[in-house]
Amino acid sequence: MGKNFKFNVKNTNGNARVGVINTPRGDIHTPAFMPVGTAGTVKAMYTDQVKELGAEVVLGNTYHLMLRPGAERIEKLGGLHKFMQWDKPILTDSGGFQVMSLSKLRKMTEQGVEFQSHIDGRKYNLTPERSIEIQCLLGSDIQMQLDECTPHPATEKQAADSLRMSLRWADRSKVQFGDRPDQALFGIMQGSVYKDLREESAKGLVEMDFDGYSIGGLAVGEGQETMLEVLDYAADLLPKDKPRYLMGVGTPSDLIESVRRGVDMFDCVMPTRAGRHGLCFTHRGKVNLKNARHADDPRPLDENSPCEASNRYSRAYLHHLMKCNEYLAPMLLTWHNLAYYQELMAGIRQSIIEDRFEKFYLETTELWAQGDIEKI
Amino acid sequence: MGKNFKFNVKNTNGNARVGVINTPRGDIHTPAFMPVGTAGTVKAMYTDQVKELGAEVVLGNTYHLMLRPGAERIEKLGGLHKFMQWDKPILTDSGGFQVMSLSKLRKMTEQGVEFQSHIDGRKYNLTPERSIEIQCLLGSDIQMQLDECTPHPATEKQAADSLRMSLRWADRSKVQFGDRPDQALFGIMQGSVYKDLREESAKGLVEMDFDGYSIGGLAVGEGQETMLEVLDYAADLLPKDKPRYLMGVGTPSDLIESVRRGVDMFDCVMPTRAGRHGLCFTHRGKVNLKNARHADDPRPLDENSPCEASNRYSRAYLHHLMKCNEYLAPMLLTWHNLAYYQELMAGIRQSIIEDRFEKFYLETTELWAQGDIEKI
Repeated sequence: MGKNFKFNVKNTNGNARVGVINTPRGDIHTPAFMPVGTAGTVKAMYTDQVKELGAEVVLGNTYHLMLRPGAERIEKLGGLHKFMQWDKPILTDSGGFQVMSLSKLRKMTEQGVEFQSHIDGRKYNLTPERSIEIQCLLGSDIQMQLDECTPHPATEKQAADSLRMSLRWADRSKVQFGDRPDQALFGIMQGSVYKDLREESAKGLVEMDFDGYSIGGLAVGEGQETMLEVLDYAADLLPKDKPRYLMGVGTPSDLIESVRRGVDMFDCVMPTRAGRHGLCFTHRGKVNLKNARHADDPRPLDENSPCEASNRYSRAYLHHLMKCNEYLAPMLLTWHNLAYYQELMAGIRQSIIEDRFEKFYLETTELWAQGDIEKI
Repeated sequence: MGKNFKFNVKNTNGNARVGVINTPRGDIHTPAFMPVGTAGTVKAMYTDQVKELGAEVVLGNTYHLMLRPGAERIEKLGGLHKFMQWDKPILTDSGGFQVMSLSKLRKMTEQGVEFQSHIDGRKYNLTPERSIEIQCLLGSDIQMQLDECTPHPATEKQAADSLRMSLRWADRSKVQFGDRPDQALFGIMQGSVYKDLREESAKGLVEMDFDGYSIGGLAVGEGQETMLEVLDYAADLLPKDKPRYLMGVGTPSDLIESVRRGVDMFDCVMPTRAGRHGLCFTHRGKVNLKNARHADDPRPLDENSPCEASNRYSRAYLHHLMKCNEYLAPMLLTWHNLAYYQELMAGIRQSIIEDRFEKFYLETTELWAQGDIEKI
């Protein structure tokens, strides 16, 4: 890893691992969920709240930040940490995924990708080199190579061509990144749902010796069952002594199932985006606060949670705030969801430390299955 | 006042007064600015933030709350304080003003006003009696009589007819309110810009002996100069030993000018609404954070403010959040504006206590006039 990064696995239960990444900006206890701070803010949250919930790293999106306010501008203002007032580690993606999902008039070549901003139509060029340059301007602690997130479904030929280009881009990213002791660079495994391609991707990346390895191209429409089939072998293809990051995943169920298969890091807009839409995650499954059944319910979302958003306000009040499109609704529900996600990850970590992950897994998933807090 | 309310004027400087209203739910130091919590939430703020800024009372809107979630529902859930988790005093308006400005198909008679909800077209009937009934169901500490806010401009005949009906409604409101030792009822002075009508209104209300007196029908399009001309005599028409509340006012300049003319209490959506639109109030005047000149400005809005929203984030960051329509923009800018309003009121109170209000007034308005923090 970057010389001043260390990763130590403290204990394993089956394939599940508990560990810690030491970084110059603080430790990241794994398995970790990283809240997404797309445009330099975890939506509807103050950074101090995010920190108080136990998040030790947040994600920034290179695509969004390169368009607005611009990487060079953030660098001049002292970097992304200072800009958004977050002093713990920041992980950035490469920008590639959002270019493909959000931008207009894309043109991808071996060189990189040309695209037009979805905001103002301005033309940009993103190459493996420029992506790393941007991530360095932002001051990102954990950076991602530019890759192509192979769409689903893809034929074996399409997936192979795609992953091989991503491998060549991995190499260029690594050259551009150079020697940065205080920052880490991850390679990204692709290969779609084809085991031999996942192997080829992993092998190519491991030969380049990255600081960590991301598992890409999952949670792109293949469904949880197929995703878990890939994870059944994918994590094992990666070195045991480096962190494994499953990109863009997922639901609480996705998280615990993936930890069980050896994943250490996650990011997803799920808890924040769902919160803005009135959908809450709890230990008894999902609750849709827009549902009229909550209109007279005096109970909080979770009286046992230490989070004020979960234990203090009645479901009737939260329902009312949603109905009235009040700012406080996304503020409270995002807070609640991130609290639940961090509580879940803390529970997972503790259970692995205490050699009872499988029991924790069974109890937790059983409670979710009993569901629905709305009916309690 | 309600038996368990007391109002004491501690000191006066010219017409400016500093005092305290003791209520069963806590003291309100006057002159006071009351943040508006329209639908049971001060928009984009946690109640604890509002409290930490020094606000000792917030406003609830009867019109909004009677439509959603409904007064009877709030009563069943334990009242508005519990519903919104605010344990200090709440002042409610009568609903009349919003019926006239927001609802559809209104029909006003001596009895009251029939209207259709602006949300779903449902029909409602608001009478002086029903307004008080609703405010009692909400558990409001300081209630307002139903009145007609005389529109501007109005002929003397229109203004006279209007204020006389409001006086009859004041009487009916008082009868309905009855004997409630823990709650207070204010009468509302009308009379438009006509001094003899303001006198008639004040005389009628004072004879009924209300717990406090609101000054209504101002800040409705007449302009600051005309408003202050009315205030030059209006406050003096009201008893010295009762609080005077100027409804729906205003800008920082409106506040300090009105205090200077004897007003004790204010409410306005100005700081919260402006904050949501990127407009900030500071000791050096207004700042529009949407302006491109802020894009690279590393300075906070006010480094000397104790409020994190004002002293921690760069104008460049706040500008960026506004441009991206991020939730954090209204969250931070509302917070900043309410902090500035509370800081202004605290400064006003302290200066009156120390017999230097006129100096404070001159210094403060001079700084505003030098303006524009954007150019500093």
